[in-house]
Amino acid sequence: MSSPHPFDPLSAAEIATVAREVKKLSPNDHGIFRVITMAEPPKAEMVQYIEQEHSHRSPAPPKRIAKVHAYFDKSFHELMVNVETHAIISHDVLKGRHSHVDTAFMKQVETACLADDQIQAEIKALNLPQGAKVIVEPWTYATDGMNDMSQRITMCWFYMRLSSHNDANYYAYPLDIVAEVSEALHVVKVHRLPSSVTESIDIVDKPTPYDHRKIHTSSEYHPEIQSQHRNTTKPLQVVQPEGPSFQIDGNYVTWEKWTMRVGFNYREGLTLHDIRYDGRSLFYRLSLSEMFVPYGDPRCPYPRKAAFDLGNDGAGVNANNLKLGCDCLGHIKYFDFWHVTSAGDALKLPNVVCCHEQDDGILWKHTNFRTGNAAVARSRLLVLQTIITVSNYEYVFASYFGQDASIHYEVRATGILSTAPIDIGDSVPFGTVVAPGVLAPYHQHLFCLRIDPALDGHKNSLVVEDSVPMPFPHPSNTFGVGYVTESTIVEEETGLDLDHSKARTFKVVNENSVNATTGTPVGFKLLPCYSQMLLAHPSSYHSRRSEFGKHAVWVTRYSDSELFAAGTHTMQSLGGEGIESWMKSRKDNSSNASKTRDEDIVIWHTFGSTHNPRIEDWPVMPAEKMIVGLKPVNFFDRNPALDVQISSQESNKSVLVGEKDPEVVEREAGKARL
Amino acid sequence: MSSPHPFDPLSAAEIATVAREVKKLSPNDHGIFRVITMAEPPKAEMVQYIEQEHSHRSPAPPKRIAKVHAYFDKSFHELMVNVETHAIISHDVLKGRHSHVDTAFMKQVETACLADDQIQAEIKALNLPQGAKVIVEPWTYATDGMNDMSQRITMCWFYMRLSSHNDANYYAYPLDIVAEVSEALHVVKVHRLPSSVTESIDIVDKPTPYDHRKIHTSSEYHPEIQSQHRNTTKPLQVVQPEGPSFQIDGNYVTWEKWTMRVGFNYREGLTLHDIRYDGRSLFYRLSLSEMFVPYGDPRCPYPRKAAFDLGNDGAGVNANNLKLGCDCLGHIKYFDFWHVTSAGDALKLPNVVCCHEQDDGILWKHTNFRTGNAAVARSRLLVLQTIITVSNYEYVFASYFGQDASIHYEVRATGILSTAPIDIGDSVPFGTVVAPGVLAPYHQHLFCLRIDPALDGHKNSLVVEDSVPMPFPHPSNTFGVGYVTESTIVEEETGLDLDHSKARTFKVVNENSVNATTGTPVGFKLLPCYSQMLLAHPSSYHSRRSEFGKHAVWVTRYSDSELFAAGTHTMQSLGGEGIESWMKSRKDNSSNASKTRDEDIVIWHTFGSTHNPRIEDWPVMPAEKMIVGLKPVNFFDRNPALDVQISSQESNKSVLVGEKDPEVVEREAGKARL
Repeated sequence: MSSPHPFDPLSAAEIATVAREVKKLSPNDHGIFRVITMAEPPKAEMVQYIEQEHSHRSPAPPKRIAKVHAYFDKSFHELMVNVETHAIISHDVLKGRHSHVDTAFMKQVETACLADDQIQAEIKALNLPQGAKVIVEPWTYATDGMNDMSQRITMCWFYMRLSSHNDANYYAYPLDIVAEVSEALHVVKVHRLPSSVTESIDIVDKPTPYDHRKIHTSSEYHPEIQSQHRNTTKPLQVVQPEGPSFQIDGNYVTWEKWTMRVGFNYREGLTLHDIRYDGRSLFYRLSLSEMFVPYGDPRCPYPRKAAFDLGNDGAGVNANNLKLGCDCLGHIKYFDFWHVTSAGDALKLPNVVCCHEQDDGILWKHTNFRTGNAAVARSRLLVLQTIITVSNYEYVFASYFGQDASIHYEVRATGILSTAPIDIGDSVPFGTVVAPGVLAPYHQHLFCLRIDPALDGHKNSLVVEDSVPMPFPHPSNTFGVGYVTESTIVEEETGLDLDHSKARTFKVVNENSVNATTGTPVGFKLLPCYSQMLLAHPSSYHSRRSEFGKHAVWVTRYSDSELFAAGTHTMQSLGGEGIESWMKSRKDNSSNASKTRDEDIVIWHTFGSTHNPRIEDWPVMPAEKMIVGLKPVNFFDRNPALDVQISSQESNKSVLVGEKDPEVVEREAGKARL
Repeated sequence: MSSPHPFDPLSAAEIATVAREVKKLSPNDHGIFRVITMAEPPKAEMVQYIEQEHSHRSPAPPKRIAKVHAYFDKSFHELMVNVETHAIISHDVLKGRHSHVDTAFMKQVETACLADDQIQAEIKALNLPQGAKVIVEPWTYATDGMNDMSQRITMCWFYMRLSSHNDANYYAYPLDIVAEVSEALHVVKVHRLPSSVTESIDIVDKPTPYDHRKIHTSSEYHPEIQSQHRNTTKPLQVVQPEGPSFQIDGNYVTWEKWTMRVGFNYREGLTLHDIRYDGRSLFYRLSLSEMFVPYGDPRCPYPRKAAFDLGNDGAGVNANNLKLGCDCLGHIKYFDFWHVTSAGDALKLPNVVCCHEQDDGILWKHTNFRTGNAAVARSRLLVLQTIITVSNYEYVFASYFGQDASIHYEVRATGILSTAPIDIGDSVPFGTVVAPGVLAPYHQHLFCLRIDPALDGHKNSLVVEDSVPMPFPHPSNTFGVGYVTESTIVEEETGLDLDHSKARTFKVVNENSVNATTGTPVGFKLLPCYSQMLLAHPSSYHSRRSEFGKHAVWVTRYSDSELFAAGTHTMQSLGGEGIESWMKSRKDNSSNASKTRDEDIVIWHTFGSTHNPRIEDWPVMPAEKMIVGLKPVNFFDRNPALDVQISSQESNKSVLVGEKDPEVVEREAGKARL
């Protein structure tokens, strides 16, 4: 067994070792383990390491450190442990902080909630249809200022399942109850939910029974219990007779001039490291930093619905076990990674990342009209994909690498809308009625992509470039058609906004590496996903907790501790610890610390959707795509995909579809008559 | 042979018939035919026709009319001819107007230009390298106010080919000459081109010889003459063992609940008619209305470079003959259509449209976290595609139909950049140096997609919807998190702008057809392509000629004569005859004529790219995608793709990629040793 690469996540054996060492600290309390994950080595060390590695030297690896989150005696501990020497490097109790969502605890909350007498009385008062099974869906509590956030509080939302089928869609039957459950598993408060526009939780006190007119049959999605099945879609298979074009060595991926290392952790899920094309360094690290899903229903208690799906839930621990032939076509390589059970045992996360190729149509084409000769190359993509389920909802996260040195990061949002009850006949201006009695409230999905560039080295700069008309009238613009680009190098940490009306382009450049032909610094440009930023008021907890939601593009100085744009501990956070706070703190300390020109910088792109549900998003939503691109700009000396083989029928083996030839039909009819 | 559908383009026989009838009018002048195309029947008639057709009645078809453009005695004629009765319905001479680009004429221009003594003297003065072959590239003249536009003038740009290979890239050697050639094929003016930023054609008079330092080897793209070939991309084939899921009957396409008719003409190329999903009417007609490619180099004569690639050149006549296994994978149906030769003979345009299916990854997925059961459906798309070559450049136009009733219109821009000479060492702020002596000037590509909706009928309205925060502080927004949508019905013809900061959404709705569940009018929303609008000054000819380039979304009242957003005759046009002019004229005539609420309306979406070339776009550009979407919003009663079969390995036959198992490697090594 070769030793792990410094970017490799912890192995099962390493997790077990670390757990054993941590348990030794507290012989009488076995603890509840939440996280044992690889603490990435400091970048300063890794930059030297990978430089030597790519020069085919054998560098000494940085220390291999594990970060541990665990509860001992109900307090939340963080430890850093040297995986090889077993030394405990640090050990802190994180007072007032909470771990990411604990599935086991959530199940206890469900059980305790349903067992509560007051809850049972409320359910009884609803007079539910016969056979109804009440389902409690516990959610983390989004800070709203109404409770002490140093205590873990769980919101329990109620649904019922009417069908006996276990996969019946209970989100189709949101019930008119909500409960708050304490850390000690006590039901602290029970309320009816608001129904009309102006009602709030505080003034509702109506033991309204369940309205049986809400019972309907159209909200099932599971193939075994929904009645419509189209059978018109004929099979389509991807065949790769010579196998895939990629090579995988551990977590190191080589494909069409690209090389990169696949990483994974419980929180971010899939991460990518040391991304190079044709041997040239492009990005040190690409990752989804955070996402925030605030709901726009203003009525208490709905402002408590606002999820940090990475910080609170974890893209890694919620990653699907991908199935061959279901989630992808063609030749698929799956990656397994490891997490930890609450007892401290290594827990396999099987098939949580897949790697495969896709055809993407025409990469480039030109027909010489003088000779009639066409040259056409098809585009092949490498896809690294992970899919997560966060309660009702799913996200497909995929990075697409192109032969032309482009990268596209795609999010697909699918799954089931989070629902709330609404009276038959009512409507609200902040939600869509998607089925009888079912309100799908408006909400936003705000993603923050963290881009750590390393274009020909680690000293990079961000340039903002607008396309602007030349002055007119003016002697050098006689006809009024001239336009130029205006470029500004961003000198200091800041948040910036998109402006399509100026074709505003954000470029990362290396001013020390000049393109010999264009005479300009080598660069990559961001193809942003045009999105509305956070709608919540700047003084709201939503806004204070999700600072990254204020601007579309941010540039910061690199810091080892800044991976998560809304802060490290988002569970019931109070705000003031995200990207804007880091910037302010640096600026307050020293102006030099904020400089971003020709420095080791990080670019953060906030994007997403203001999701005002359509009825077509119900009961399971057709995937909504959001795409961010990164493309070379005067980085190479020409189209880097010019050498891709010309597309040919010999290799592609397409099949001509013939119409029925009328003559053949005639002839066959004639034969039949004989 | 069954009679054609009213939306079917003219057949070869129909074109021949019409040409014969037109020739009879002028027995002594055979004429030069430019166009014989189907004049689409008036919508008023077609609406009745297709209504009856879909009720399985056999309606009487509207009159089948051909539109003819031809030159007789050097004047430009337009005739309307009844294809069946042969009656000449109208016959006009279009004074001061010009037909779209005439390839035969362009070839005459080239020959005449090269044969000219002054040109030969200028070429000699350039002192070109031995073996250089001078190539003249004739371009239509974009109006700049410097010449009489009632006369056809051709701009001749000069290049040289250095290699003996016929497909060598002569755009890599732009020469320092430009000539104006008259209708009578005389070289009227010859100039050297500007090189420095401030030079203009009027002050240049320098017999500078060709700078041999510009000779280079890196600009070839043709596989036979460029030296780098990657051989790492292994074959990827699409196999459809049961054939495609579509049925084709003439030009009628049926696929996964969709039905539509494929149309085609010399100008727009592919058009789509009577688009329905599950029997419900969605769109009467979808077409690319126009495109405009103005260059941003302000120096005379470059403002003359500004092409209407549809109105001047024609997407239909420039459509590629698509090749099996090169332009698409899987089972491909090709459509042929017919044009006319200058002599009036029918001319086959083979394989100009292709129809095939693509897999598009995950359509929807949900994993029930309580049972662990996942249901995942893959997305299949139907693609209708055409590819055009306009001199140096190519566009791939494709409509993607989804099982979820979405439509995506995609443009891919590829091909070779238009180039201009630049002195070694020089730079300009309105272009990129992509190779020694080769300037790729900044330019815009502005497309106008014409969307003629028919949502549950022809009386539709356009709604503009913004997502806006609720007032705060306010009693009904205690926590500052509430947001609502604000909708405005557009009452009158107008041009509108995008605003991603408000998540601005443009919806076409039918106020007479209300969704029973949501209680709102049925609709489709536009997913716009965020783009900068025209940069040229409003008083410039560029702007006056391309009115559609001012706003991203336009709504007009339907008119049979308004298919082309920059006007019917764009060749050397003077402006004032596009979408804005129509609107003004209607508003001036009567306020009622401008009303757009609950009327037969047309939506126009202007989008494109401000294309400031990268060196990576050279010598052939990796396709740049621009995508526009149309999605149902509260049109159906739920996700219309819910009935799509669940994805299974049985059908998809994916292949697991195994890493080399170290034990196997060991074992094999052991065997080898034995």
